[in-house]
Amino acid sequence: MGTSANDRIWTAALLVIGDEILSGRTQDRNIAQVALWLNLQGIRLAEVRVVADRQEAIVEAVRALAGRNDYLFTTGGIGPTHDDITVDAIAAALDLPVVIHPRAREILEEYYASRGGLNEARLRMARVPEGADLIENRMSGAPGIRIGNIYILAGVPHIAGMMLDSLTGTITGGRRLLSVTVGCWVAESEVADTLSATERAHAACQIGSYPFFRDGRVGANFVVRSTDPAMIEACTSDLSERLELLGHPIIEGGI
Amino acid sequence: MGTSANDRIWTAALLVIGDEILSGRTQDRNIAQVALWLNLQGIRLAEVRVVADRQEAIVEAVRALAGRNDYLFTTGGIGPTHDDITVDAIAAALDLPVVIHPRAREILEEYYASRGGLNEARLRMARVPEGADLIENRMSGAPGIRIGNIYILAGVPHIAGMMLDSLTGTITGGRRLLSVTVGCWVAESEVADTLSATERAHAACQIGSYPFFRDGRVGANFVVRSTDPAMIEACTSDLSERLELLGHPIIEGGI
Repeated sequence: MGTSANDRIWTAALLVIGDEILSGRTQDRNIAQVALWLNLQGIRLAEVRVVADRQEAIVEAVRALAGRNDYLFTTGGIGPTHDDITVDAIAAALDLPVVIHPRAREILEEYYASRGGLNEARLRMARVPEGADLIENRMSGAPGIRIGNIYILAGVPHIAGMMLDSLTGTITGGRRLLSVTVGCWVAESEVADTLSATERAHAACQIGSYPFFRDGRVGANFVVRSTDPAMIEACTSDLSERLELLGHPIIEGGI
Repeated sequence: MGTSANDRIWTAALLVIGDEILSGRTQDRNIAQVALWLNLQGIRLAEVRVVADRQEAIVEAVRALAGRNDYLFTTGGIGPTHDDITVDAIAAALDLPVVIHPRAREILEEYYASRGGLNEARLRMARVPEGADLIENRMSGAPGIRIGNIYILAGVPHIAGMMLDSLTGTITGGRRLLSVTVGCWVAESEVADTLSATERAHAACQIGSYPFFRDGRVGANFVVRSTDPAMIEACTSDLSERLELLGHPIIEGGI
């Protein structure tokens, strides 16, 4: 078998662009959405940044994140208004000129034919860093953009989701990070030693501990993560047995 | 009157620490919560990063963010289990030793007196970077931590919220960023010129444009932001008049 592309960990970063997230006006929904989609592609979301609609902030983040991850995804700032500066900032980060993409122009002409026609603001959405490809948007005309390892998506979550959908299966990844959750009505601080001993005994697995209070009771979900299905099963059984031996019945699938 | 501390913009960064956010398992709620609270203190959330439970990632982010903002807030990774490494990582970033805080130990002894007593894992939650103060936690015993301009909060959103609550009014800020929203059943691309012309005419204001689809119709909310109440009112009236002159009735407060 030997080492294949599937044996290494593929990573992505996400850059969320928008004053509305930083002001608290809008609850972000793209981090979780992009994270879950990436995992299905066998790519791990390694880091996220949220920056304002400000060119220097975007340029700094793009340079840092695209350079050290296999992929960079961005959300937000690709609409028709003055505060949509993502394309210009990413082009600046890459030292590329901004050009009108002919196919993007056609798509917008078609989309706006029955909606008042293509004006100057709408034509802004055909602007791309030179050399870019388009990402299909079946929802609202204006396409997403790929340039190198950077994927530029809309900020509106359901449009970003449609763009991810059209990218499904087109991006190289490795083995998926699998996870199994077991829940327990116990304070995590009572079983902390058990958790770390179990993790140490299963080198290919990580165990995360997520406590909660519900119905006036303390509990925790323990999430075992690994790319190897056999290892994750072994680690989960071991953890479950240890917890039950301590008198804490486990609930498969979590609470 | 002259220039006072209130005339400059105070900024904070937020560092969200946790594999569970990057895996998509948990939908982040702390970004919006911290953003809204900061704004009430007259502090602007300038940037956010999300990193994994990995010391190097936390150290890099803490050094970058605490250095260029007035404040850094962190959420997550301060519990009793092996994956809770925030205190050690922040101490490492600041080149400080980790010590047991005597008052934190007392608080935990008291809290766990009726809950099985203070074991080694629970005592981990009394560990702080040397020289730190505590942030009260009325919810679950284990306190938050302040060291220099860094505020270390719990990851569970309602506990983080209680810690913010206990910090209310204790942190220096400037003038609040105010915002007024007007909604309009119009495609933002039809009024893009109006938005940018209005923004240019009101130098102390920014206008954000947030499009949506609802009930099969296209609309947008326009958010005018400024620290000056008179300026924001002038800009909002101007924008509303311009939109209505174009035949787009506005809905005060947004749609």
